[in-house]
Amino acid sequence: MTREHMRSDMTVVIVGLGLMGGSMSLALRGHADAPRLVGVVRSRQSMEMARELNVVDEVTTDLIGAVAEADMVILATPVRTLIRQIEHIGPHLRPDTVVLDLGSTKRAICEALAHLPDGVQPVGGHPMCGKEKAGLAHAEATLYQGATFVLCPLERTADWALHMALDLVHRVGARPLILDPSHHDRLVATISHLPYLLAAALVGTTHRVAQEDSRVWQVAASGFRDTSRLASSDVKMMLDILLTNRETVLSMLDTYRHELDTLRDLLANEEAEGALRFYLSNMKALRDAHFDTNRKE
Amino acid sequence: MTREHMRSDMTVVIVGLGLMGGSMSLALRGHADAPRLVGVVRSRQSMEMARELNVVDEVTTDLIGAVAEADMVILATPVRTLIRQIEHIGPHLRPDTVVLDLGSTKRAICEALAHLPDGVQPVGGHPMCGKEKAGLAHAEATLYQGATFVLCPLERTADWALHMALDLVHRVGARPLILDPSHHDRLVATISHLPYLLAAALVGTTHRVAQEDSRVWQVAASGFRDTSRLASSDVKMMLDILLTNRETVLSMLDTYRHELDTLRDLLANEEAEGALRFYLSNMKALRDAHFDTNRKE
Repeated sequence: MTREHMRSDMTVVIVGLGLMGGSMSLALRGHADAPRLVGVVRSRQSMEMARELNVVDEVTTDLIGAVAEADMVILATPVRTLIRQIEHIGPHLRPDTVVLDLGSTKRAICEALAHLPDGVQPVGGHPMCGKEKAGLAHAEATLYQGATFVLCPLERTADWALHMALDLVHRVGARPLILDPSHHDRLVATISHLPYLLAAALVGTTHRVAQEDSRVWQVAASGFRDTSRLASSDVKMMLDILLTNRETVLSMLDTYRHELDTLRDLLANEEAEGALRFYLSNMKALRDAHFDTNRKE
Repeated sequence: MTREHMRSDMTVVIVGLGLMGGSMSLALRGHADAPRLVGVVRSRQSMEMARELNVVDEVTTDLIGAVAEADMVILATPVRTLIRQIEHIGPHLRPDTVVLDLGSTKRAICEALAHLPDGVQPVGGHPMCGKEKAGLAHAEATLYQGATFVLCPLERTADWALHMALDLVHRVGARPLILDPSHHDRLVATISHLPYLLAAALVGTTHRVAQEDSRVWQVAASGFRDTSRLASSDVKMMLDILLTNRETVLSMLDTYRHELDTLRDLLANEEAEGALRFYLSNMKALRDAHFDTNRKE
């Protein structure tokens, strides 16, 4: 097998032209040897928008017709939609079609990918980027640049198919990271699904206080804005994520509550100022070591 | 009394030229009728930096000498330092000197302000802006623009002194909000001190997971960066804040844990998908209503 790179005579079908799918198409089109890009959407309205924004070479609502002619299918819909689509398109794919998904959890999806017909080449994927604003209107060619892009090849995945996925990751400017699905789901429960729930509960707490005094929203500044930002995420997308990673997220919530209780005890204990300072200093040092803190709030 | 506005023949002494004090001076200097601005710092090094950056008209390490000649003193040091300084400078202030502080908690500070000698005019203050990067090097004239600036006049505060403080708030481009100190401390516990602790505990949880697999930091993207940002705040500043607002913060932590438990129960219950969706949709609607969500992550 020699098809390790995307070529301009290949057809890549992107299912779902939202923020992720739309940005993927825009990023791939930036290359001289870009493949033919076909977008699959559900509504006439989305078709018109995709044409107006010139996101793909062709746009259709015919999922089966499109994937039947694909060399590569990129699934960019919410996780549970994506799982249904994997089952639905399977019988219609040609052998050697590479199926890559962009779903935010990987265990449930890779289980579905494993049931694709023999000969089809599945690769699980999860680009670690996004915005809290969903939709094609917010898509941009640079969304993937510099992002970590997790790939989960299955046991059955041929080397050439993995290399094709790696080529795609490099083309959009991301950095590949190969992980197994369970491992991936635990890491993202920590750094994405848990923060989402924390943000939602922060907004819930603020809402309770606001019922006594609505001026609480007025004093909320950049610190609150950033800490609560994920609560503005697309609910359908997040619900699919939480429900396909439920047990891991629940376990991570328990770890978090334990950590928060430890911190609460330090604050409650009037003798523990030194230990509280030590804890907070460690947390600052850890975060500063992993993130650029020069960004303006 | 006619001194309701700052005048160019007045001397304003800013104690502490960090992010807040430095930005205050830069903002006040932008006006044609700016008062004479004197900065008080602790070290030779800070003096040199203040001169290099041309932040004030004069800089000194002599706190008592400076405030003795002030028409207005602005205290911009960490909360517990500030409380000590209020006691320390009291006997040296001239009658009718306005003392405004920029401390992030108000009950403990206003108690200290209440003990200033008769004739001195204290006003508690708290501008709701900042960055996670402290220090004069990050100061900027625009820091206060558009921010809510809480003022806590005391019972003893003369109207003209409150008006002087209001003039200052308007000059730096902020919007005044008059609150009583207890009320202020409860609101900021909700939208500032609680989010700080949530961010610190999120970094702590991530650190636990990183001890099994350090790649967790590699997959952390913009969502984690924003949710955890406050963990990079200056520790001395935050410790002073937490310890002068301890009971309120502890009570707010309990409210938050209750909220998080409610959310956890919804996620754990396989029959509760509709209720979980309803909760998350409400939280998104609440946050979207109070914050511009068009900001790029």
